[in-house]
Amino acid sequence: MYGDSVDKRERLIESTRELLWERGYVGTSPKAIQERSGAGQGSMYHHFQGKSELALAAIGRNADDLRAKAEAEFAGPGSVVERIAVYLRRERDVLKGCPVGKLTQDPDVMADPDLRRPVEETFGWLTGRLAELLDEGRAAGELDRSLDPAATATALVAVLQGGYVLARAAGSPDVFAKAVEGALGLLATKEN
Amino acid sequence: MYGDSVDKRERLIESTRELLWERGYVGTSPKAIQERSGAGQGSMYHHFQGKSELALAAIGRNADDLRAKAEAEFAGPGSVVERIAVYLRRERDVLKGCPVGKLTQDPDVMADPDLRRPVEETFGWLTGRLAELLDEGRAAGELDRSLDPAATATALVAVLQGGYVLARAAGSPDVFAKAVEGALGLLATKEN
Repeated sequence: MYGDSVDKRERLIESTRELLWERGYVGTSPKAIQERSGAGQGSMYHHFQGKSELALAAIGRNADDLRAKAEAEFAGPGSVVERIAVYLRRERDVLKGCPVGKLTQDPDVMADPDLRRPVEETFGWLTGRLAELLDEGRAAGELDRSLDPAATATALVAVLQGGYVLARAAGSPDVFAKAVEGALGLLATKEN
Repeated sequence: MYGDSVDKRERLIESTRELLWERGYVGTSPKAIQERSGAGQGSMYHHFQGKSELALAAIGRNADDLRAKAEAEFAGPGSVVERIAVYLRRERDVLKGCPVGKLTQDPDVMADPDLRRPVEETFGWLTGRLAELLDEGRAAGELDRSLDPAATATALVAVLQGGYVLARAAGSPDVFAKAVEGALGLLATKEN
């Protein structure tokens, strides 16, 4: 019984993640979550107060997922630029968009401080970690001393988020890859 | 009479531009356009077949506006990097988002080939013009020969579009400015 309840809670969160990614917050109804997860209304309201609490759990998991993947790449082998390249070049579901970044286009998510917080914190964390790496690269003499780690890190995160936008405009993931290569090319000119 | 008709058509297009920027395509009803423009239903359907034709005119004007501003900056005085800096640093209504880029998050706009086309073409034009400028900078010895003009141009356009995303996540335009400075720092070559 307990296992079944954990399983239902899990399915509710995962279904909400999928629906948020596909349809956004406004387009995700409690009914759609119940249908996708196979959990009944009673089960949903047993585990969560409502759609907003479920969305918070789903967004939190998206954020954890983004951090865990990035951290594994940042902690990998190779030089700083190589590790950043592994992170930027990782295969992504480009035309579906970033599960975290996409939420910024959802007025209801941005208007709710609890839902916006994990989005803001995730980009803050990501930019901070990249800045640490870039600083490490400067200290090791791998990157030019003139590089501003925080500003450069912000630009790199922006390239990914903007790459999603351009790919959607073009209806093709190629332009995302091109933006990434452009950013890495610029970073390479800063290598000592 | 003729002047009045032109004026009404103009007001209909400008009202649609404002509403698309504020609320997106789905959130822009024919009724809201009529109310904002002060034009009646008869007048709206005299000038346009419906919301989609009006949106096409509005999106076309957003695209023309983006091109005209960028072209004036690209054709200005100064070195290539200086002109790109003027373009990237121009004051923008960052938290409202890019009137063109924002449309990529509008499923109904992306699903309609006629409405998506001007969005795709605008980014294609912008990337192409920036690539031309970067190539000019390479030829003049201002920029490193190793720089790939097309990929670098794509990265620069992505920085702006991603800057809007990060600014919305942070609820502040500061991060947009930081991304721009990061990109310009990367573009600044080591002393030749």
